[in-house]
Amino acid sequence: MKTLARGVIACCRELAEFSEEPDRTTRTFLSPPMRDVHRVLGAWMERIGMRVWIDAAGNLRGLFGEPEKPRLIVGSHLDTVPDAGAFDGILGVVMGIALAEMNPGMAIEVIGFSEEEGVRFGFPFIGSMAFTGTLRQNSSVFEAITAFGLDPANLPAARFARESVAYLEFHIEQGPVLESLDTPLAAVEAIAGQSRGVLTFQGAANHAGTTPMNLRRDALGAAAAWIIEVENYARSHDGLVATVGSLNVFPNAGNVIPGEVRASLDVRHADDSKRLIAASDLLTQAEVIAAQRGVRVASETRMEQCTVPMDRNLTQLLSDSGGGLPKMTSGAGHDAMVVAPFIPSTMLFLRSPAGISHHPDESVLPEDVEAALETGARFIESLGGRYA
Amino acid sequence: MKTLARGVIACCRELAEFSEEPDRTTRTFLSPPMRDVHRVLGAWMERIGMRVWIDAAGNLRGLFGEPEKPRLIVGSHLDTVPDAGAFDGILGVVMGIALAEMNPGMAIEVIGFSEEEGVRFGFPFIGSMAFTGTLRQNSSVFEAITAFGLDPANLPAARFARESVAYLEFHIEQGPVLESLDTPLAAVEAIAGQSRGVLTFQGAANHAGTTPMNLRRDALGAAAAWIIEVENYARSHDGLVATVGSLNVFPNAGNVIPGEVRASLDVRHADDSKRLIAASDLLTQAEVIAAQRGVRVASETRMEQCTVPMDRNLTQLLSDSGGGLPKMTSGAGHDAMVVAPFIPSTMLFLRSPAGISHHPDESVLPEDVEAALETGARFIESLGGRYA
Repeated sequence: MKTLARGVIACCRELAEFSEEPDRTTRTFLSPPMRDVHRVLGAWMERIGMRVWIDAAGNLRGLFGEPEKPRLIVGSHLDTVPDAGAFDGILGVVMGIALAEMNPGMAIEVIGFSEEEGVRFGFPFIGSMAFTGTLRQNSSVFEAITAFGLDPANLPAARFARESVAYLEFHIEQGPVLESLDTPLAAVEAIAGQSRGVLTFQGAANHAGTTPMNLRRDALGAAAAWIIEVENYARSHDGLVATVGSLNVFPNAGNVIPGEVRASLDVRHADDSKRLIAASDLLTQAEVIAAQRGVRVASETRMEQCTVPMDRNLTQLLSDSGGGLPKMTSGAGHDAMVVAPFIPSTMLFLRSPAGISHHPDESVLPEDVEAALETGARFIESLGGRYA
Repeated sequence: MKTLARGVIACCRELAEFSEEPDRTTRTFLSPPMRDVHRVLGAWMERIGMRVWIDAAGNLRGLFGEPEKPRLIVGSHLDTVPDAGAFDGILGVVMGIALAEMNPGMAIEVIGFSEEEGVRFGFPFIGSMAFTGTLRQNSSVFEAITAFGLDPANLPAARFARESVAYLEFHIEQGPVLESLDTPLAAVEAIAGQSRGVLTFQGAANHAGTTPMNLRRDALGAAAAWIIEVENYARSHDGLVATVGSLNVFPNAGNVIPGEVRASLDVRHADDSKRLIAASDLLTQAEVIAAQRGVRVASETRMEQCTVPMDRNLTQLLSDSGGGLPKMTSGAGHDAMVVAPFIPSTMLFLRSPAGISHHPDESVLPEDVEAALETGARFIESLGGRYA
């Protein structure tokens, strides 16, 4: 298993060379290097006796075992963000093939989704949406499919087979929680919902030298006071994360009091009602702070996405398969989020050293991959037993 | 006087039409529309018997009265910021000519400085530096002078005449103080010193969804906490203004915890030691806040400029001439700052409606101009009496 784990890591690093850009890994939906990934992984799958095909969405698929038997889907995505690391997404595909190579006791379909990050067309999950039959007509996407030599007319055939009884996704955590707990793995019980919005603080731009403090309506002062409130609020509410990641100041000159500030707000919690209350409370806080300072604030919702629970039984089985793995909520979105409403799904997180992802320094420990393979093998054994 | 005041305003509005850009007023150092300003104002000065010349720095100069007699210099600048109003600078020149038209009891030299705003070459006060003999060799500036048809070799002759016994500058306040006091005019007793710097808060960029609040090193959180401290500090120190006008966040994405924030700091006070203590205290505050949050902060000084006091006697005379005008510190820099070390100087501020300046909505009230002309006339009468 140790050798297999090292092979998984080596394979991921090798695949990271297939890129649209020299000297860094960038591989978007149906870009030319995606063919190389298909070729390398497809060859491996064929070598171990899997049936391999590319569906009309460009998803790489390989079936181990008999097509009419209940099958476990093991999947993740093949695309990357710009200047990516070597593991986000593709690790879950490579581990799926590694598990098939271990000659498991049930049919396994490995799927490498063609698109999850949303880089090429600005919206994510093209691969898993095709897989679940939820991809809507989109001329840019359909043109890209045609240009890659595939036929959008065949998209309905990309839908998952009725024999798909469960979905398992291995993924790096992309956060610091497992490392801070000194734990290699966790079973994911839910993917947190998100509220995203933009707030505009409107004050009055004025001369920094001639406007006394008491006659100012400083939009940045109001935004700063609110950012502190956002932090305090999230810190005092368990399981909540709230982030002001983007801030744009106008006119943004050192000697002019800021007249306008636009701030993003990103709120996530596993419990939708707690998230919605938090988002609403934080907007109210902004209004209170603005009013105290003679500043106006307007807000705009950009995203409201509900929490997607993973299948409770599968997640328990996964935790048990790892000898009682901790369970956690994923703060990031994953393909499992799209698949879960259609197929009972769960995810296994692997510790991210230093919490780093979406960066060339992204990594994974060989012993963690080994533990994940062992957990996966036991999970398949138990699950296969249910369908024997 | 009422007619003269209305004429002053009409003249400023007419001159605002002379611009490098259509439909807005932008007139930088020795730009083509500057010739039109010279032509119109020069013709007016000649009509009332003044001797008119353009010096080698492009300053428009006109002498009323005998050249060997003690003269009052009345000056301000002819250049503007981009998309300017009609009064910043040029009002002080037009009022100087209006005072000469009133046939005052002493010699007056009116000077329209060619450059004060620093727009064309990124440094200000070219006109007043030539007037005081402090303009250093600068190839861009010298080329512009030559291109305008003037000769940099004649710059020494642009220096003020030894007969110059006092300098008076009329200027709009560019702030809300006089309006808030319901007062049309103030005598300026000092131009406040400035400290400017840039602070860089270095945290750790991380995923907004996967990084719990207690494991964050949010550079924007640290910057926000510091901005509130800057505000509180300035509010609790009389006469101090401190501004964070510019803030740049990296990577500035809604779903990424900010890893780095660069913030400007602008601190002004009439008392240099208080300003320097404040700037130092605010940097210490930043370090304390950053340390509490696992964030690093580095700072860089961009400007340290001392307070320039106006001449105490002249300022008192100006205040008395207006029937006991209030005295105030200018938070903005003016040509008087450059002239004051060489010629006893003072300034008269005219109320800025709504505190607006550097904007097309910039204005001045006819009754305030009238009051300023009356004050100026009495000031010249008294001053002239001292040299009679």
